[in-house]
Amino acid sequence: MSAERQDPLLLTPGPLTTSATTKKAMLHDWGSRDHEFIEINRRVRERLLALAGAQDTHVCVPLQGSGTFVVEAAIGTLVPRDGKLLILVNGAYGRRMARICDYYQRAYSVVETPEDVPNDPDGLEGALADDPLITHVAAVHCETTSGILNPIERIAAVTARHKRALIIDAMSAFGAIDLDARKVPFDAMAASSNKCLEGVPGMGFAIVRRAALERAQGNAPSLSLDLQDQWSGMEANAQWRFTPPTHVIAAFHQALEEHAQEGGVAGRGARYRRNCEILLKGMREMGFVSLLPDALQAPIIVTFHMPADPKFDFKQFYDKLNQRGFVIYPGKLTVADSFRIGCIGRLGETEMRAALDAIRKTIKEMGIIHCGPKQLAAATR
Amino acid sequence: MSAERQDPLLLTPGPLTTSATTKKAMLHDWGSRDHEFIEINRRVRERLLALAGAQDTHVCVPLQGSGTFVVEAAIGTLVPRDGKLLILVNGAYGRRMARICDYYQRAYSVVETPEDVPNDPDGLEGALADDPLITHVAAVHCETTSGILNPIERIAAVTARHKRALIIDAMSAFGAIDLDARKVPFDAMAASSNKCLEGVPGMGFAIVRRAALERAQGNAPSLSLDLQDQWSGMEANAQWRFTPPTHVIAAFHQALEEHAQEGGVAGRGARYRRNCEILLKGMREMGFVSLLPDALQAPIIVTFHMPADPKFDFKQFYDKLNQRGFVIYPGKLTVADSFRIGCIGRLGETEMRAALDAIRKTIKEMGIIHCGPKQLAAATR
Repeated sequence: MSAERQDPLLLTPGPLTTSATTKKAMLHDWGSRDHEFIEINRRVRERLLALAGAQDTHVCVPLQGSGTFVVEAAIGTLVPRDGKLLILVNGAYGRRMARICDYYQRAYSVVETPEDVPNDPDGLEGALADDPLITHVAAVHCETTSGILNPIERIAAVTARHKRALIIDAMSAFGAIDLDARKVPFDAMAASSNKCLEGVPGMGFAIVRRAALERAQGNAPSLSLDLQDQWSGMEANAQWRFTPPTHVIAAFHQALEEHAQEGGVAGRGARYRRNCEILLKGMREMGFVSLLPDALQAPIIVTFHMPADPKFDFKQFYDKLNQRGFVIYPGKLTVADSFRIGCIGRLGETEMRAALDAIRKTIKEMGIIHCGPKQLAAATR
Repeated sequence: MSAERQDPLLLTPGPLTTSATTKKAMLHDWGSRDHEFIEINRRVRERLLALAGAQDTHVCVPLQGSGTFVVEAAIGTLVPRDGKLLILVNGAYGRRMARICDYYQRAYSVVETPEDVPNDPDGLEGALADDPLITHVAAVHCETTSGILNPIERIAAVTARHKRALIIDAMSAFGAIDLDARKVPFDAMAASSNKCLEGVPGMGFAIVRRAALERAQGNAPSLSLDLQDQWSGMEANAQWRFTPPTHVIAAFHQALEEHAQEGGVAGRGARYRRNCEILLKGMREMGFVSLLPDALQAPIIVTFHMPADPKFDFKQFYDKLNQRGFVIYPGKLTVADSFRIGCIGRLGETEMRAALDAIRKTIKEMGIIHCGPKQLAAATR
């Protein structure tokens, strides 16, 4: 992990700090229709399918672009024009799925909970019982708006019991938090190369139930984002329909190898949980208060309330941390003033402790005494 | 150019062989919302705008994904729902724009010429005079299906005289063949990082007339591919709406620096023209016949008729060339059996001569005597 030390460490929801070996995999050029690249691509798709426990039932369809491109593609490809999507919302990524439906003119309804409250399986149960028009349900596994972990197993069980199809935005959790198609029934799961799998950004992928994809021809409102067409093309000649991000895929191939070496989802998840524990403990020692109770906190990214101390200025805090070699993220909450620190990427105990040290020095330098938020009520909920 | 020698040289329409320094620019990680990355992004956009001579009238909107994503985004964002697109077709990329309109349910008509005949400005003139419903015209600058150069100046002049808006797919020409907004009026031009600008694949960009983009709110049928929203977001905070391919952009930044060092469009174009001349001369000496007369040939990629010699087997030819370190492309013509050899990417006289040498050895090894096609008529047109 020492080779990247010249770059600031990225304690963000992504793009993340990646290993030197992952980046070095990009020091070659590939013909996108050549055997060698096709083989890289095949191995990547195979590995992703295995990670989702979905070899017997699903296929892996990679897609150019960011994670949102894949979420949009999954909704557009799977929800038919006369279908209706129920979206479980407790943050920006749930709301973004509603926005995609607005663009696509697909019918949808929303079951919303506050940003610090998990998706509500009982509310879902009621909504599905009440509205027979709903064909699909969409949920976000880990909402990085707050860092909350949603109860995806219960959501999947309710959805399956009501015989609807589930689409999961697993962007920021897949590879570190278990999501197995044999236990959690879903028609599609969307994720990207540059989150817990620690590749570089530029592509995403969907794990899609084969039977659902076979039925989906003609659904998609967009050629570029048609997962059915993308998959058919790949089935036919093992190639991407349109120019793939060859270097990004080569890096992803290497990143997946390193994920396996670390012990797969269990190993990666354990490191991130340890990162998260170190972060929470250290920040709390300084007086910072996290938004979520520990039971709801995914080991991906932690939201902290902005300190009430009048000397605290986020821009100054951010810049000083940056100068010390750490990039953090502003908050994305609509309900409270906050900032976020990520636990994912090629970071371990040493890096987390170094980040805490930099934060400690920075608040001292800024003369901040109280790191707790204005309304302590929010902290003790 | 020697550092990549371990990789096969890519004589394809892209992804291409890139410089070692361009690839090495990817050996860092960036926070996508951090100052340093924002600055890289600003410089890339500024340089692209300048290359198109469009600083006073247009804006540069980068987009994640392949070139087709940008072409789709430009059509979806600029052609209003009650608009109509006239597409000039003489190959697969023109036909692809029609397919995009099918997906988007946008009205369109087509003026088609055979794959070895340039777009017809007189046919365009007639079509625009006949159909007042047409609001936009779309054309492909260089159709890599055949390698033909379309008369974009005349197309733009006719379109402007009829007060319609022009969308140019300049994917495989931009950066090597002059396209200046001050001389060739267009509302949008779409291109990508990994063609004549010699970056790596994973992003494209559109140069869009500011006034047209300002009017385009609410047009796009896709959130991810909404250039108006992408641009508004960037204007607001200089950031991408959704995770950008940070490493690809850093490589593109370096590639654009090298493009400038080579003398910009003039310098890059001169090298490619020389590559093309060497290739054509050498292949003709062996008896191969190119599809196009030299006057129609863009210095991007050359289509050759498949040799009639019964001993010629394309797969074998391809594999043997590959073993010798050169990747070529199968043909994409619907009308004739062909293959293609590219002249673009980080290749010069030395590499082109080495490629010819490899071809010479390969045909000798395969025992091929006649490299000309079955119907010589096609060759002498």
